[in-house]
Amino acid sequence: MNPVDIINKTKKSIPLSESEIQYLVNGYISGEISDYQMSSWLMAVCLNGLTDEETIALTFAMRDSGNVLDLSSINKVTVDKHSTGGVGDKTTIIIGAMAAACGVAVPKMSGRGLGHTGGTIDKLESINGYRTELQFNEFIDIVNKTGFSVISQSDELCPADKKMYALRNATGTVDSIPLICASIMSKKLVVNADCLLLDVKCGSGAFMKTEEDAQRLAKLMEKVGTMAGKKCRAIVTDMNVPLGNCIGNALEIKEAIEILNGKSKGRLYDTCIELTANMLELAEKGSYEECVAMAEDSINSGRALAVLKETIRLHGGDERICDDVELLPKAKFSHTICSSRDVEIISVNTEEIGMASLLLGAGRIEKDDDIDSTAGIVLEFSVGDKISVDAPLMTLYSNLCSDFSEPALRAYNSIRFRTLTSSISTLT
Amino acid sequence: MNPVDIINKTKKSIPLSESEIQYLVNGYISGEISDYQMSSWLMAVCLNGLTDEETIALTFAMRDSGNVLDLSSINKVTVDKHSTGGVGDKTTIIIGAMAAACGVAVPKMSGRGLGHTGGTIDKLESINGYRTELQFNEFIDIVNKTGFSVISQSDELCPADKKMYALRNATGTVDSIPLICASIMSKKLVVNADCLLLDVKCGSGAFMKTEEDAQRLAKLMEKVGTMAGKKCRAIVTDMNVPLGNCIGNALEIKEAIEILNGKSKGRLYDTCIELTANMLELAEKGSYEECVAMAEDSINSGRALAVLKETIRLHGGDERICDDVELLPKAKFSHTICSSRDVEIISVNTEEIGMASLLLGAGRIEKDDDIDSTAGIVLEFSVGDKISVDAPLMTLYSNLCSDFSEPALRAYNSIRFRTLTSSISTLT
Repeated sequence: MNPVDIINKTKKSIPLSESEIQYLVNGYISGEISDYQMSSWLMAVCLNGLTDEETIALTFAMRDSGNVLDLSSINKVTVDKHSTGGVGDKTTIIIGAMAAACGVAVPKMSGRGLGHTGGTIDKLESINGYRTELQFNEFIDIVNKTGFSVISQSDELCPADKKMYALRNATGTVDSIPLICASIMSKKLVVNADCLLLDVKCGSGAFMKTEEDAQRLAKLMEKVGTMAGKKCRAIVTDMNVPLGNCIGNALEIKEAIEILNGKSKGRLYDTCIELTANMLELAEKGSYEECVAMAEDSINSGRALAVLKETIRLHGGDERICDDVELLPKAKFSHTICSSRDVEIISVNTEEIGMASLLLGAGRIEKDDDIDSTAGIVLEFSVGDKISVDAPLMTLYSNLCSDFSEPALRAYNSIRFRTLTSSISTLT
Repeated sequence: MNPVDIINKTKKSIPLSESEIQYLVNGYISGEISDYQMSSWLMAVCLNGLTDEETIALTFAMRDSGNVLDLSSINKVTVDKHSTGGVGDKTTIIIGAMAAACGVAVPKMSGRGLGHTGGTIDKLESINGYRTELQFNEFIDIVNKTGFSVISQSDELCPADKKMYALRNATGTVDSIPLICASIMSKKLVVNADCLLLDVKCGSGAFMKTEEDAQRLAKLMEKVGTMAGKKCRAIVTDMNVPLGNCIGNALEIKEAIEILNGKSKGRLYDTCIELTANMLELAEKGSYEECVAMAEDSINSGRALAVLKETIRLHGGDERICDDVELLPKAKFSHTICSSRDVEIISVNTEEIGMASLLLGAGRIEKDDDIDSTAGIVLEFSVGDKISVDAPLMTLYSNLCSDFSEPALRAYNSIRFRTLTSSISTLT
């Protein structure tokens, strides 16, 4: 086998064999295949696609590039959940606690945010003292005690994905459904939970901009997961409006707690019930309707919040925030944008509002950038709301940025209004 | 500008601006753009193509990556000729001498062979003493004296092409018409002759396997050359049969001399008349018919052979070979393949016979391999000939390889026969 022959096959849409794909992935890890050969192949994949069989072989080869976790010391059925990234998505923290409160184990490895999307690890690190890098044994202990733990993804897990993802990022080869599938699924198969719920975000703030692409990715991931012997389900959820009203790390922890303590209902609450019920159904805890009832009860009874509180404590974090969200870190500076006229909110470009939040310091442009835990945006509306002139639209927060003009303009421009009066639009 | 945005445009078939292409080429030469980014872009070009305007901009940016030659001290109209590579193609040596004998100047830079294709420089180096690496002034002096000189292409000329070609070779991105056009034309524009004849080979032994692709490449190169202010013509010639009967370096010099001394006629002779007449017509030496007559006269009068003889002498080579081809180096070993039945020759796979010649030592697998000047193959037939049982089909020569079994099998298998008797085919 030689890399040029393999590249030429994919260039001509001739399917590769399992062993050719293994040679490609293993050769890339060992250095026998160079970055420039791999990037040429990746571009051929972006433009010509891969068959499902090739995608499965690629995912398995990537999974096998490092160790697969051994979760056998967890006594319950394990359920993992993956979301394809979004803006303001704090569901992992909420539904992990909910599902654990209903009797399944949720051993979760998460990543950090990059660009306009956030990362669960960044959100949790806004809690004073919370340690995201634990020894594997410590992680398993917490899962066995509370049913739920989230740690930072180890650099050693799935080295093929780590190396290929960095290359894709630098070579314009990110947006390919088979490559996205293999990247996500290889990491999920390394974590090795019994059940796997895949939440494919669709819309302006997500990787998948169209319903059609989101459905293709969902079906492909389900097929790969099932072939790997997992109980696997993929659902498509809307990312054309932010999930909840808060974007930014500490702000999102606050919002998560307010869902778990029952204070906040609405679209985010509904999504969390749906996702948790799906996780429980996958784990064979009952019919979907029964699982919905269990999910609701985990909140109403306070058990889900108790799980989160104990999990935070065992991670070294300040668990008192679960009783008093005011103990979360707060930004020094804030800036409220009010409406200059009577309007109805038509939509929010979630990618743009994510970028505004990034400008405030809540996110990273480069992988090693520092972030400001307190920074972010709180929306004072839901899509469809009518806002009167001079009423607040949103509030921006930051510790670092006292000049709000650029992020405020970007955040304002992310909203589409329908004017209800004839006054001229101005940014106040 | 950033490389990922540029790659993404080509991936989405959005044409690049001239300045984006300049940024890409200059950034690649300076190291700002990495090999892996360039190879990803090259694969996107292979699969999505480039517009003619992009191809022109790419060619010009590559041309301008180094110095352009100044041929102004040559007093005659300068004519350059390029062939897209083939098997047994010794036309450069023949038609350079013919055109020079008819009053134009042919300052020629050539390359070495790689894989199944030969290189003019390798052929000339089979002449004892012939120096292919001259100072630029020496080169111009010889052109002014005889009208013709061939030297080895300097490594410093067109650095962008050198770097990109090596990368394309390693990343499965060779076979793209816009990239082939830019590679050839950037080097030709660097040489900077007034007129440019492009000979696009078509068939099994050539880069362009189909007439359609060959015509596309020809038209594109003509357009690029004309945009660069050159008198430019591209013609497509058949490479489904080898050009002449000899393949291998010293063997091809012998054949070239036998065309120039009038001993050999046939397809190679006809092709050389056609190419020379085209060069002369481009240089406005007369109508095509007049140019054909001039080309024929250059051979009949002995003037073309005299040009080659003096050119070889000025390059330090043993010019006596022009009077006695037996002075060329000869192989120690030879092996004749005879026909096992009465056959008619239908066709020759020129790529395969080129590979057989390579196995004998006449070519290179890797760029830095040594070659055997004496090695090669002499075909004892032309396509369409009838060969009797036990009559010779071809003779293989080599200094290095005394076991001819593998190259003989490959050479034999490159020929398609029609059996004229009912005897069973065997390789003798």
